Amino acid sequence: MIARSVRLSFSPPLDPSEYRFVHRLRTRFAETDAMGIIHHSAYIPYLEEARAAMLSAAGHPYDRVRADGVDFAVLELYVRYRQPLRFGDEVDIHLSVGELTRTTFQVGYLLQVAGETRSSAVTVHAAVDAEGRPLRMPLWLAELVGPEPAV
Amino acid sequence: MIARSVRLSFSPPLDPSEYRFVHRLRTRFAETDAMGIIHHSAYIPYLEEARAAMLSAAGHPYDRVRADGVDFAVLELYVRYRQPLRFGDEVDIHLSVGELTRTTFQVGYLLQVAGETRSSAVTVHAAVDAEGRPLRMPLWLAELVGPEPAV
Amino acid sequence: MIARSVRLSFSPPLDPSEYRFVHRLRTRFAETDAMGIIHHSAYIPYLEEARAAMLSAAGHPYDRVRADGVDFAVLELYVRYRQPLRFGDEVDIHLSVGELTRTTFQVGYLLQVAGETRSSAVTVHAAVDAEGRPLRMPLWLAELVGPEPAV
Amino acid sequence: MIARSVRLSFSPPLDPSEYRFVHRLRTRFAETDAMGIIHHSAYIPYLEEARAAMLSAAGHPYDRVRADGVDFAVLELYVRYRQPLRFGDEVDIHLSVGELTRTTFQVGYLLQVAGETRSSAVTVHAAVDAEGRPLRMPLWLAELVGPEPAV
Repeated sequence: MIARSVRLSFSPPLDPSEYRFVHRLRTRFAETDAMGIIHHSAYIPYLEEARAAMLSAAGHPYDRVRADGVDFAVLELYVRYRQPLRFGDEVDIHLSVGELTRTTFQVGYLLQVAGETRSSAVTVHAAVDAEGRPLRMPLWLAELVGPEPAV
Repeated sequence: MIARSVRLSFSPPLDPSEYRFVHRLRTRFAETDAMGIIHHSAYIPYLEEARAAMLSAAGHPYDRVRADGVDFAVLELYVRYRQPLRFGDEVDIHLSVGELTRTTFQVGYLLQVAGETRSSAVTVHAAVDAEGRPLRMPLWLAELVGPEPAV
Repeated sequence: MIARSVRLSFSPPLDPSEYRFVHRLRTRFAETDAMGIIHHSAYIPYLEEARAAMLSAAGHPYDRVRADGVDFAVLELYVRYRQPLRFGDEVDIHLSVGELTRTTFQVGYLLQVAGETRSSAVTVHAAVDAEGRPLRMPLWLAELVGPEPAV
Repeated sequence: MIARSVRLSFSPPLDPSEYRFVHRLRTRFAETDAMGIIHHSAYIPYLEEARAAMLSAAGHPYDRVRADGVDFAVLELYVRYRQPLRFGDEVDIHLSVGELTRTTFQVGYLLQVAGETRSSAVTVHAAVDAEGRPLRMPLWLAELVGPEPAV
């Protein structure tokens, strides 16, 4: 029996203009490791911080979403580490909702420092209640899909 | 331009007998989140702790590997969250080297609590020196591939 | 106006025999930093893991204590870093309840590797309910005070 | 034998005007715990991030200080948790160098959200080289002591 990933399907573009949002953060010294670079586990909270900033920018701060009884559980996670991040780097995290179904959505991420790609990533989420049961996907998520539409 | 994952190819089996090693750890309260479960980012150090235990069990503790000038950089990471982990859970992490090439190796993981599957994962690694340059893969890694051979 | 510490008063002994419990853990690579040592923030989950092990050893696992509606909120924290911890170190955390009042208790810690002192610490706690309101201190905490009594 | 704290002596004021610098950060969901609040261990990287911002504001970014061969090792840490932080809080960390000797310096911190005090803290540091040996304290640290002087 093989554990297939049935959901993760979105390929994050390497062109920042393909993303609708960007969030900047600065790496912390606590996130470095003995190789002198940012430890690979530290990227996961970066992605989450960028998602929270995207939700806030879209008028749906995650603490309010949660107060309304909706959690966005993480179902799958994929990260590709291309070039290391270092302490003090200012990281631009470009992100968009890449795929949206009735039960899940996928977010794509491109991490750059000064325009140089360091990493790309995808997360797959479901909307669940406080007991982890599936909820209908909030309609406003559709507004976060893909790049900003041209006028 | 699309960011293809050219390396990650191993599908972690859901049958623990397909793995050569198992490492048990206990979740920490610090690793819980406001949903009352273990935060998804906490799994990444679990996988790393299991890799380090596998290397020690194979007679190549990672601190000695590093003292010999070899780091195992993480190139890609995939985690599938099936059922949540909770505070106090004793987690059995089954793992093996799943694929081994001249330049990379992949490790597959199955996380279970009391025989119930909670998560599966794959990491892709390269051997690099202290400056991040590729090194020849240590030969002993071949001994960690797949399940324990039947006699 | 000065923020006085009115509660933290316990001085953790440097002699392991002065403690009632010991918990061993192994440092993680994820907990190292670019100085090549365990980052000082990683000690705080170590102390918590040792407290949880102490509660389990005393027959009161923290997940069951929490299920009974009691949380042990952290009021104050003091850590003294004497010698660094490194990746792969097996750390013996000696600990006891050092002071116990009607509303708070203090836990003292001594961290050693192979009998060498690396760090000492104190935490101050209150028993609170899920809304953070003070609760009566569980009576069994008195059994965790000080070293194992001589027969 | 008792482990005395010989160095930590600074009492962090509760009046923000007593501090020279302020750094604002936003809490992360990954930093929450199953009590629904920010876990007490998450504060330690907050303090470190604020120190790094203070050094940058003073014209001595910590990555450049480290490139010059100076690390600021943490010798002692004290945190008092007064009111919890929550996910999404914007935290103002007021900080100054509180004491400066030939071999150590102490930093005091006041954490507030919307003007309400949540926590105060002190860290004690030494200047060390890459092998952890004591170095002469950089002279410019004297410029970070106490509140901004009145004109």
